[in-house]
Amino acid sequence: MPKLYFEDFRVGDVSEFGPRRISREEIIAFAVQFDPQPMHMDEEAAKHTMLGGLAASGWHTCCIMMRMLTDGFLLDAASMGSPGIDEVKWLRPVRPGDSLTVRGTVQSARVSRSRPDRGFVTFLWEVFNDRGERVMTMICPQMMLRRNYAGAPA
Amino acid sequence: MPKLYFEDFRVGDVSEFGPRRISREEIIAFAVQFDPQPMHMDEEAAKHTMLGGLAASGWHTCCIMMRMLTDGFLLDAASMGSPGIDEVKWLRPVRPGDSLTVRGTVQSARVSRSRPDRGFVTFLWEVFNDRGERVMTMICPQMMLRRNYAGAPA
Repeated sequence: MPKLYFEDFRVGDVSEFGPRRISREEIIAFAVQFDPQPMHMDEEAAKHTMLGGLAASGWHTCCIMMRMLTDGFLLDAASMGSPGIDEVKWLRPVRPGDSLTVRGTVQSARVSRSRPDRGFVTFLWEVFNDRGERVMTMICPQMMLRRNYAGAPA
Repeated sequence: MPKLYFEDFRVGDVSEFGPRRISREEIIAFAVQFDPQPMHMDEEAAKHTMLGGLAASGWHTCCIMMRMLTDGFLLDAASMGSPGIDEVKWLRPVRPGDSLTVRGTVQSARVSRSRPDRGFVTFLWEVFNDRGERVMTMICPQMMLRRNYAGAPA
C-alpha cells in the first residue's frame, strides 16, 4: 500500500537521496548500449573532446537519478507516472568514481482539473557530485493520487 | 572526420531513423536497472496500473531514441554535445514488440553569441510506433561546430 499521496507534497518541501557512486565500467557499459560517442566510451579519445576526459552520458545521469528517486520515494507513493519532463540541464561532466546525491524541491502542487482524484506535483531535482558541484538539474511533474478522495478508483 | 556541420541543418529539414524493435526482455532489463516500478517489470502487476499492461520506462524510450540518433547522424556530425533538454512528452505506452521510428525536424539554428565557432541546432524529435501512433516527443538543442570557421579550434 502506498504511504505517500498528493497531499504529502507541499511547495518548498526538500528531500535528499544518495549518495550513489558511478563506476567507469558502468559509464562505458551504458554508453555502448545507448550513447556510443567517444567521450563516453574511450578514455584516450575522450581527452580530445570538449569534456576533457571520460564522462557519463547525460542520459545515464538521468537514469541513475530515476533509480534513486524510485528507491527513495516513488515505490512508496501513489504515483501515476509522469506526463513528461519540463526541462533538463547538463551543467558539468559526471566522472568515473563520482558519488552523486539528489536534492528534490517541490515547486508546485495542483489538483488535476480533468481528473480530480489526482494531482500534479512538480519537482526541481538537483544532482550534485561529491565535490559539491551541481552536475544536472531537472524539472519534472509527477502525477499522484489524492488520499481518500471520494471518487478515487478502488 | 565529421561530415555534418552546423550549416548542414536548416529550419524545416526533416530526417527519419529506424525502425528499432523493442523486446519484452530489454524493457524488463532496463527497468530492473533504472526504473523498477511494477508497470515496467511485471506483466501481471502492470495490468492493474494506469498503463494497463507492461510498458517501457519513459527513460528507456529516451535512451533508445538517443541510440538511434547517435547511429543515425551524431557520429557523423561535428557535435559538441547538448546543454540539456527543453521538453519531453510521454504520450502513449511503448509495448513489448513495438517497432519505433524517429522523425526529427529542425526547429531553429543559431550561432552561439559567446563562442562564434559553433551554433545551436534545436530539433523536435517525434517517436512513433508501428501503428503510426506518436508515443513521445522531445525538443532538444544540439551544439555543432561551424564548417571552416576561421577561429575554430584545430
